[in-house]
Amino acid sequence: MRMAELSAVSGCSVATIKYYLREGLLPPGEGTAATQARYDDGHVERLRLIRVLREVGDVPVSRIAKVLAAIDDTRRPLADVIGTAHHALGPRASDDSAAHRQARREVVDHVLSRGWEVDAEAPAFDVLAGALAALRRLGREAGPESFDPYADAAFAIAEVELASIDPSSGPSDTVTQVIVGTVVYEQALIALRRLAEEHHSNRRFGTDHGAG
Amino acid sequence: MRMAELSAVSGCSVATIKYYLREGLLPPGEGTAATQARYDDGHVERLRLIRVLREVGDVPVSRIAKVLAAIDDTRRPLADVIGTAHHALGPRASDDSAAHRQARREVVDHVLSRGWEVDAEAPAFDVLAGALAALRRLGREAGPESFDPYADAAFAIAEVELASIDPSSGPSDTVTQVIVGTVVYEQALIALRRLAEEHHSNRRFGTDHGAG
Repeated sequence: MRMAELSAVSGCSVATIKYYLREGLLPPGEGTAATQARYDDGHVERLRLIRVLREVGDVPVSRIAKVLAAIDDTRRPLADVIGTAHHALGPRASDDSAAHRQARREVVDHVLSRGWEVDAEAPAFDVLAGALAALRRLGREAGPESFDPYADAAFAIAEVELASIDPSSGPSDTVTQVIVGTVVYEQALIALRRLAEEHHSNRRFGTDHGAG
Repeated sequence: MRMAELSAVSGCSVATIKYYLREGLLPPGEGTAATQARYDDGHVERLRLIRVLREVGDVPVSRIAKVLAAIDDTRRPLADVIGTAHHALGPRASDDSAAHRQARREVVDHVLSRGWEVDAEAPAFDVLAGALAALRRLGREAGPESFDPYADAAFAIAEVELASIDPSSGPSDTVTQVIVGTVVYEQALIALRRLAEEHHSNRRFGTDHGAG
């Protein structure tokens, strides 16, 4: 298909598609000039994936480029590719205070001591350390074991998620499944936890139930 | 304490504190001018809460003002105040497409049919609808029941969370506990799920384990 059709099918404007081509997020079509080139279903799929990462995952374009580069690097072992793509998702810049570094050491030690096979450099540890440091700034005597109930829940959820991945359509598609699942179901989990808190708050503190 | 000490104790710059005073996030101290006024432990606590909402929860200042207004409105029933504060946390602006509105109706109906006592206007439904609409854009035949395993996990987590809230120190403190828990443990849950996915990915696809 030509650029105009790619735009219509994907729901992305021509300007956006050209921007992604320039930034290397989208491989060039076959042909000499962008508007004359021919694009295929692979381009449509790639545009859909970019849109999910941007709109649902709120991932900036510079990080999307890294995620896509990992997905396209099919020669490396699958778990490495998934790890790289996962790490490229984020989070935002980490805190470099002494309190944060201390919290980071503690959460890494604690999670590794549970037997989780994860990279100590994973950016998710910065997020977890940020949560621990925040509890301490608020005057709570919190240790990394405060998060154990969340770790148990996350472990069970992720086990089901990874078991549902179908690797039969090749490495790129497998990594894409993992990344889409990470981003989309993360938002679902956040939303459902907030709704569940509202429900339990109404049950515990709502006037209809006579508690207070 | 004077402004300079409030700045030292809270870790917020004088300029930031003055900004929060102007925006109404922080009640004025006792006295005639900002730098001459006297501040107390209530100001320190409030500054810590604002910092958690900004740095951990990534909540913009305009929404923090709404969260704090709800916390300070102690005459209303506690569950209402928690609901208002919760809704004020976010999310970002919602999508107004027909696909999003359709997805929103479906997730609201589904969650309410599970017996959850929640407001159909809760912004979390926009996040959940966004996740469902994204799966559909990617060509998956997904319904709101796709999220049931996450709903079950979120329901159990939130039940423990709300049971741990201690309402004995008054309504403002109770709402603060809920809001801090929502924001801080949300980040912890996101981080731990990503780490758990990395672990299960390594177990399933890592070369050390011979799978592929």
